[in-house]
Amino acid sequence: MSDPAGWQDRRVLVTGGLGFIGSNLARRLVGLGAQVTLVDSMIPAYGGNLRNVAGIEQRVRINISDVRDRHSLRYLVKDADVLFNLAGQTSHQDSMTDPGADLEINCAAQLSILETCRAHNPGVKTVFASTRQIYGKPDYLPVDEKHPLRPADVNGINKMAGEQYHVLYNNVYGLRSCALRLTNTYGPGMRIRDARQTFLGIWVRLALEGKPFEVWGGAQLRDFNFVDDVVDALLLAAQSDATDGQIYNLGDSEVLSLREVAELLLQANGGGEYVVREFPQERKRIDIGDYYADFSRFSALGWAPRVPLREGLARTLGYYRENLPHYL
Amino acid sequence: MSDPAGWQDRRVLVTGGLGFIGSNLARRLVGLGAQVTLVDSMIPAYGGNLRNVAGIEQRVRINISDVRDRHSLRYLVKDADVLFNLAGQTSHQDSMTDPGADLEINCAAQLSILETCRAHNPGVKTVFASTRQIYGKPDYLPVDEKHPLRPADVNGINKMAGEQYHVLYNNVYGLRSCALRLTNTYGPGMRIRDARQTFLGIWVRLALEGKPFEVWGGAQLRDFNFVDDVVDALLLAAQSDATDGQIYNLGDSEVLSLREVAELLLQANGGGEYVVREFPQERKRIDIGDYYADFSRFSALGWAPRVPLREGLARTLGYYRENLPHYL
Repeated sequence: MSDPAGWQDRRVLVTGGLGFIGSNLARRLVGLGAQVTLVDSMIPAYGGNLRNVAGIEQRVRINISDVRDRHSLRYLVKDADVLFNLAGQTSHQDSMTDPGADLEINCAAQLSILETCRAHNPGVKTVFASTRQIYGKPDYLPVDEKHPLRPADVNGINKMAGEQYHVLYNNVYGLRSCALRLTNTYGPGMRIRDARQTFLGIWVRLALEGKPFEVWGGAQLRDFNFVDDVVDALLLAAQSDATDGQIYNLGDSEVLSLREVAELLLQANGGGEYVVREFPQERKRIDIGDYYADFSRFSALGWAPRVPLREGLARTLGYYRENLPHYL
Repeated sequence: MSDPAGWQDRRVLVTGGLGFIGSNLARRLVGLGAQVTLVDSMIPAYGGNLRNVAGIEQRVRINISDVRDRHSLRYLVKDADVLFNLAGQTSHQDSMTDPGADLEINCAAQLSILETCRAHNPGVKTVFASTRQIYGKPDYLPVDEKHPLRPADVNGINKMAGEQYHVLYNNVYGLRSCALRLTNTYGPGMRIRDARQTFLGIWVRLALEGKPFEVWGGAQLRDFNFVDDVVDALLLAAQSDATDGQIYNLGDSEVLSLREVAELLLQANGGGEYVVREFPQERKRIDIGDYYADFSRFSALGWAPRVPLREGLARTLGYYRENLPHYL
């Protein structure tokens, strides 16, 4: 096959590789001929799920280990050409009830990964999955990369530190790294057992089970990226030298209220229902109101999201209709 | 005595209490009639020094423990009315050679302290000593609190996270906290064995020993606060309800180049010499260039630095002339 992107035989390490985004990335990389190693801790509350790599199990190397474990990480990282650093604790609420665990994964382990790369593989290029969460409640919309960082929960603070370590190690040590601040990402492979990864997960599940799902608030505006578009972005970020030391928003020009998203989901599902609820008190304290991104900085590199929400939801529902038992 | 500030019999806990700023604060608080407990780990590379509390040893409670130790901290924190949270790793260079230790002290321990307060003393008011370091290389001068945060070293990233936890716990849990972003602080009690706390420390020591000290670069602009003025600021921050959840720069309207500071120091010392050197390579990577603060936001609460640099340096030299052996 032609290999314009140059992934053929490249050695790629993906932390959080059995998770939602990591596994979709792995599938794409395998198709492009890369040698892919997936590192995942399979912590039950996180996103790892072997079903996510169904059909490519024999074409990737799966390594169950925790990124907090320096020794295994050193071995795994040393030969990688590219590191997609996607391992993370994603639940905002869990970060408030167990802030120490969130700090270990999203902050301490990131520093440890970077130190390991610096010592054992300083030539690796790293792409870090950051999050819009670190902006907190926006001062203005759309939110660009210059927006002040005022994280509204412990998860946001730790992700902010994790991201900044990557930029710092690029700038100080020349350890080539960049960060993408992801917005709400959805698609096949996302966690649907609960809302730990995205509220869309539990919505999809309940819609498929014929049960009403809850919309908290409903008027909040959001943008969404289908996972294939995020995979495009990760690959582009890894391939470009221009991204070294840089931070970019992802996002989508399609901006909807949560209630509109709920309607779209039910249309795509061919029926179902939802109930609009007041924000639960413990969530209200960490909610950020409206958010959507200015992603023109990353678009300038040649990225554009291609999957409209309506289509993405239909593909997501189709996937879980066939795979539901593996995700409960 | 009259007690307009209301410190009489207040129970005050100071982490890093045997350090430079903590001990100066303790001395003031004792004079105001507060019941003061000083927590310090006495880690040799940090700022703790028993000489700092000479003469008030019997009027404070000294507790040698590490803020990373949750159990002792729980016991110590539970009865405090006010917590001055000053414990920290301050060396920028050490944060690069041992980033994990910096993370533990400046990031993980801060989260642990706040969790402990939330669980065992939610009524305490906390003042956190943050740092101008978290701004990184300034985009504009003077730097106000809205300036983007782009820390130039691991210490800056971890202090940024530590600060943000305090604001978050205020906003989410009503655990009253505020943060002061200190600029270069100097005075009696600062570490002079090396430059781990401030470059002025090693300058003062060498000037007193009749040896030349090194000025790296020399043209960089800085502002300085004498420690008494910082103590004023800490007390004011603790006393005001308006500071809850807020972040303030400290600073001074007297802005000098490092070379001018060196000249002032030698004048105050009645002689001596310095040599101007190129920045060492490993420091250049994390240097921030010119910095001075816009501190009008905190001034609006009634604070103003009162000690000019010339006077502060003279007082500092006077102190170390009498106490030098205790600080080597």
